[in-house]
Amino acid sequence: MISHDSRIPVAVLGATGAVGQAFIRLLDGHPWFALVEVAASERSVGKPYREAARWLEGTMPADVADRTVVACSPDAVTAPIVFSALDSSAAGEVEPAFARAGRLVLSNAKNFRMATDVPLVIPEVNAEHLSLLTHQRATRGWTGGIVTNANCATTVMAVPLAPLHAAFGLTKVFAATMQAVSGAGYPGVASLDILGNVIPFINDEEPKIETELQKLLGAIAPDASRVIDASIMTSAHANRVPVEHGHTVCLSLGFERPPTVDQALDVLRGWRGDDVVRGLPTAAERALIVRDEVDRPQPRRDIHLGRGMATVVGRVRPDPIFDLRLVAMSHNVVRGAAGGSILNAELMVMTGMVPGVSRL
Amino acid sequence: MISHDSRIPVAVLGATGAVGQAFIRLLDGHPWFALVEVAASERSVGKPYREAARWLEGTMPADVADRTVVACSPDAVTAPIVFSALDSSAAGEVEPAFARAGRLVLSNAKNFRMATDVPLVIPEVNAEHLSLLTHQRATRGWTGGIVTNANCATTVMAVPLAPLHAAFGLTKVFAATMQAVSGAGYPGVASLDILGNVIPFINDEEPKIETELQKLLGAIAPDASRVIDASIMTSAHANRVPVEHGHTVCLSLGFERPPTVDQALDVLRGWRGDDVVRGLPTAAERALIVRDEVDRPQPRRDIHLGRGMATVVGRVRPDPIFDLRLVAMSHNVVRGAAGGSILNAELMVMTGMVPGVSRL
Amino acid sequence: MISHDSRIPVAVLGATGAVGQAFIRLLDGHPWFALVEVAASERSVGKPYREAARWLEGTMPADVADRTVVACSPDAVTAPIVFSALDSSAAGEVEPAFARAGRLVLSNAKNFRMATDVPLVIPEVNAEHLSLLTHQRATRGWTGGIVTNANCATTVMAVPLAPLHAAFGLTKVFAATMQAVSGAGYPGVASLDILGNVIPFINDEEPKIETELQKLLGAIAPDASRVIDASIMTSAHANRVPVEHGHTVCLSLGFERPPTVDQALDVLRGWRGDDVVRGLPTAAERALIVRDEVDRPQPRRDIHLGRGMATVVGRVRPDPIFDLRLVAMSHNVVRGAAGGSILNAELMVMTGMVPGVSRL
Amino acid sequence: MISHDSRIPVAVLGATGAVGQAFIRLLDGHPWFALVEVAASERSVGKPYREAARWLEGTMPADVADRTVVACSPDAVTAPIVFSALDSSAAGEVEPAFARAGRLVLSNAKNFRMATDVPLVIPEVNAEHLSLLTHQRATRGWTGGIVTNANCATTVMAVPLAPLHAAFGLTKVFAATMQAVSGAGYPGVASLDILGNVIPFINDEEPKIETELQKLLGAIAPDASRVIDASIMTSAHANRVPVEHGHTVCLSLGFERPPTVDQALDVLRGWRGDDVVRGLPTAAERALIVRDEVDRPQPRRDIHLGRGMATVVGRVRPDPIFDLRLVAMSHNVVRGAAGGSILNAELMVMTGMVPGVSRL
Repeated sequence: MISHDSRIPVAVLGATGAVGQAFIRLLDGHPWFALVEVAASERSVGKPYREAARWLEGTMPADVADRTVVACSPDAVTAPIVFSALDSSAAGEVEPAFARAGRLVLSNAKNFRMATDVPLVIPEVNAEHLSLLTHQRATRGWTGGIVTNANCATTVMAVPLAPLHAAFGLTKVFAATMQAVSGAGYPGVASLDILGNVIPFINDEEPKIETELQKLLGAIAPDASRVIDASIMTSAHANRVPVEHGHTVCLSLGFERPPTVDQALDVLRGWRGDDVVRGLPTAAERALIVRDEVDRPQPRRDIHLGRGMATVVGRVRPDPIFDLRLVAMSHNVVRGAAGGSILNAELMVMTGMVPGVSRL
Repeated sequence: MISHDSRIPVAVLGATGAVGQAFIRLLDGHPWFALVEVAASERSVGKPYREAARWLEGTMPADVADRTVVACSPDAVTAPIVFSALDSSAAGEVEPAFARAGRLVLSNAKNFRMATDVPLVIPEVNAEHLSLLTHQRATRGWTGGIVTNANCATTVMAVPLAPLHAAFGLTKVFAATMQAVSGAGYPGVASLDILGNVIPFINDEEPKIETELQKLLGAIAPDASRVIDASIMTSAHANRVPVEHGHTVCLSLGFERPPTVDQALDVLRGWRGDDVVRGLPTAAERALIVRDEVDRPQPRRDIHLGRGMATVVGRVRPDPIFDLRLVAMSHNVVRGAAGGSILNAELMVMTGMVPGVSRL
Repeated sequence: MISHDSRIPVAVLGATGAVGQAFIRLLDGHPWFALVEVAASERSVGKPYREAARWLEGTMPADVADRTVVACSPDAVTAPIVFSALDSSAAGEVEPAFARAGRLVLSNAKNFRMATDVPLVIPEVNAEHLSLLTHQRATRGWTGGIVTNANCATTVMAVPLAPLHAAFGLTKVFAATMQAVSGAGYPGVASLDILGNVIPFINDEEPKIETELQKLLGAIAPDASRVIDASIMTSAHANRVPVEHGHTVCLSLGFERPPTVDQALDVLRGWRGDDVVRGLPTAAERALIVRDEVDRPQPRRDIHLGRGMATVVGRVRPDPIFDLRLVAMSHNVVRGAAGGSILNAELMVMTGMVPGVSRL
Repeated sequence: MISHDSRIPVAVLGATGAVGQAFIRLLDGHPWFALVEVAASERSVGKPYREAARWLEGTMPADVADRTVVACSPDAVTAPIVFSALDSSAAGEVEPAFARAGRLVLSNAKNFRMATDVPLVIPEVNAEHLSLLTHQRATRGWTGGIVTNANCATTVMAVPLAPLHAAFGLTKVFAATMQAVSGAGYPGVASLDILGNVIPFINDEEPKIETELQKLLGAIAPDASRVIDASIMTSAHANRVPVEHGHTVCLSLGFERPPTVDQALDVLRGWRGDDVVRGLPTAAERALIVRDEVDRPQPRRDIHLGRGMATVVGRVRPDPIFDLRLVAMSHNVVRGAAGGSILNAELMVMTGMVPGVSRL
């Protein structure tokens, strides 16, 4: 057990935005990590965090409120572990600078997700992809590294699809998403656009879903230099709906070895995710929860399960064209963003993969 | 042109509910039809309509407000044309009683939609299915008849799929709906269930979508005794979202002769629906509107097009698994219910199919 | 400290409704009370609770799910403490029957709130009103008794007004409420009525606000037979808004000894409520929280403070007509209903006022 | 009747924003005015309007879509009548420049509303205030002029308060508003702030309400150089609610000669506004509509009355502290902004007050 004094210092980049705030909330009282630096764009630098950020949810932790915002640069930030909530416009330059300077960057940006040598990781699903880091460091000459988590809508799908793929060989996925407004950050979606409305389009979202899933469910190559993509064809329809948090996804699934509904339910109910994740501070007791009610999951009612880290599945039933249909939902800001990154960091600390931080 | 005095008397059954009220709104000032009777369940009979109904939208037409509600029986209702907004629990007995009594029943209930000898009609799509009526009268011994319109979510899909099917041979449909609360009637969906939420289930909705589409797009048999279903496999995911009016449907489509996006757009843009519908009072100038904006259709912004009778389509793009993807939306209470029934009645009056009412 | 085995048995009447469910959630894991019986109307009696109730929020506690629903009668319910979430249509007969049978009834119904000998209590505000119970038992011949909590909108106001009244002599109150849909129970407000809308009327709400406040802030008569109403004139405007939980109230206040804004803030910030409440399991650490942000309190963001038991106040500023303006908000289902009743019960157990239950 | 060819050319400044778009919608097909120029900020100048504006409601009029956006300068804009939807940051310089150049500016900005020599006008209420223009031109040396309309929340109140003030001498107003998100423009209120929430604060709104009402209901001085403010004290509480369009205001009113509810209703029902407004193209048939239903007005259901130009009043009842309570509601973008300006312009054309435009 780590004493309070010896907690590992961490920083948040892009700390004033919606995902940055989620990092701060989730790190408040964290048993392993101490948030020692908050970094944001130039117009916030030098201000106390309480003035720089428009706090969105709950009450701003008092110790963070008084902290002075620093620049998103490895010169201004000292922590060995850096959580990045940067926009893709900034992440492309900032994150490699940190990796070069020996820091471990846990990124939510899309920039490096699909890079061959960058792990795209949901710990319960593909913890072994972290082994790409060795190759990343070797080829890029970095002493630190970048580890990414998936797009929030992809994450909803990947968790239940992982055990189904392992058991039955997933080949085809139709996915129609109904995504919460918090997925667009803050201020994000204008209320005049979404009140009482559906917007059947999210910029660049469908391509992310269609490509990231193949990498997430792929296998690490024998030489650990890359991921061999899973052969899964995905057709995604991305929609924005007037929901605060929680992305809901309707899925139709085709398999190499089509299961019955009961076989699929057995697999989903029995799955616990990679053993290595069990017991990590941010891990849900159950990463995957199957609800029996005919009308669940529902975002407003189910996002709090597993303190936001559970993926909730329901309506598992036959599909008239493919093999199986179901609905999946998880908290896009916690499971799909900040919480996922923190879990990645916990896993890497636990397994001794963070430069300058001793294995727990 | 019909003079005011000579308008055809019509009645509404189930006049106090949400769809019943929509009939009343749409019939207010109708050039051909004069609403002469409002019928509802026993607890409303004998009351003035203004007391029996909790009016939901706009202002109650003054002449209807003072009308006394009568019973849903051919003895209490005299009009030759009867619009039925009855629940399925009542429609099963009431509608045949009217048909037997020589009335033409235009029904929104599900009870008879899939009956072999009952036309399921969207006039722009399959006006010729009305010829089933002759067989219906012959076999059932009715002097009137029952004509149904489709489920409101099915209707959204059927309008754009009709011309695509005619041109390219539709074979497979993946449909994910996001349906407005008005689709559930009044009081319908509790606000505690849907505010800021998605409910990924609507009772009995997916089977309706999966079966009705085949009949709607099917061909009338040579002896006009039945419809030969179209060979289209459909997988439907039905969802309720916090939208007042307007069902949005994401569609992935497979074809016998897959079109390019441009070919599909040409067909959608060029389609005007069956000639016979053009010029009917309730028909939209354009039954199908293709929007070019990347984020349309949207229910709150597009339901008013064609005074609620247009179906709006957008995002026509290739599908990675099937051939084509698109989004369709229409007003579930107007196009998908009351307006559709009135258009059916107008078509039948125009073509001389209403017993006791001379052709226009 | 009470061991688990020795917890006091309690029951919930009206256990399937929205407030009944809130009781069950708040009693789950309660350190003093063990929920041993759930009672509801005849159509639920004999069913397992999981079948009788449509669970609205979070996950139904497993031990309650399997419990058989019993009738709302002192013959069927054995617990000495009974929480009543009954409708006013049932409470009028059921609650006295329990009081007569020696049970302590903690009621949320309006029926007995304004009865001379019935305590209307918010523990932090007027714990001493519980002394009416002696008179109630004497005059009614009851061995148990009825203790009520206030209407949920009145409760929002009463908490901040109590210390201001004590310090400065409150005389006039303008109150405009914006009330959450959960205040109407389940199914309650139809989504077609409230989505994207305001309903400027709540049946019977304004009279409750205007009369209950006088009793809540009144003084117990020297002979403890009644409450001498506070001389406060209230004008209330009650509105329903599309918010899930949390009633917000705009207040303009007139005083005998008008305070400055700073004096009012000092009083609000310094108030801790009656000492006797401090340390009760359900009491918030701070019953009254003053927020400095210019745009708080907000229901969606502040209802969770004090686990739903805090009242949150902001925008304390001068009033151009009266003396002071402010905004107050609290959780209508927790602070304003179930949580308030449980706190009342805790206080009475602590002070030895429950028949057959020894003082803690 | 004005022939199409001879319509008066008008321009819209700030044409891409929410109010600017409302001007364009309301001017589409206007019988007197032809929209010939759309002006906006530098980043839009030179683009076709269809590219410069993100269209919010309905379908962009085709002729405007192709128009090139020009600069907000009297050099770039030639029309004699100019509707200003400019932000207050731009209006302060731009509007006087147009007035100096001989144009009549109908402004929605707050900058000049309270200037002594600037008319603040709701035509039905205080058309005679337009006589200030003579003084304005004399003292400022302008050949054109600036005429303003009131803040949208003030406008809701001013319409019903005008006849009540005239009849009974209004002295005190307690106003609690529930304002739609469209009042904040576009993108305006972030969805993360307002979904399922109330924000009990709108920047600078309460002072506007408290001062503008006195000017609107004031009398023009004998020398027509200024308005003698009405002696009305107002206390305003401004709130934002999740409603698209329509501001609802709860009002408690004190009078010199307190009316009964029936007397007040008679006045409200009998009022038609200034005669001079009757028959103007944009005027509602009835500027003030009193609804009898206990729960009206409601924004979503009543904003369309009078094509958005009616003010709807309900719940007229006694007030326990002052004399009368009621609820008022109108469309903030139509009645409270663009429609009000157009009505002002129509009135001025009708009465020959527009430089270079002959009286109708």
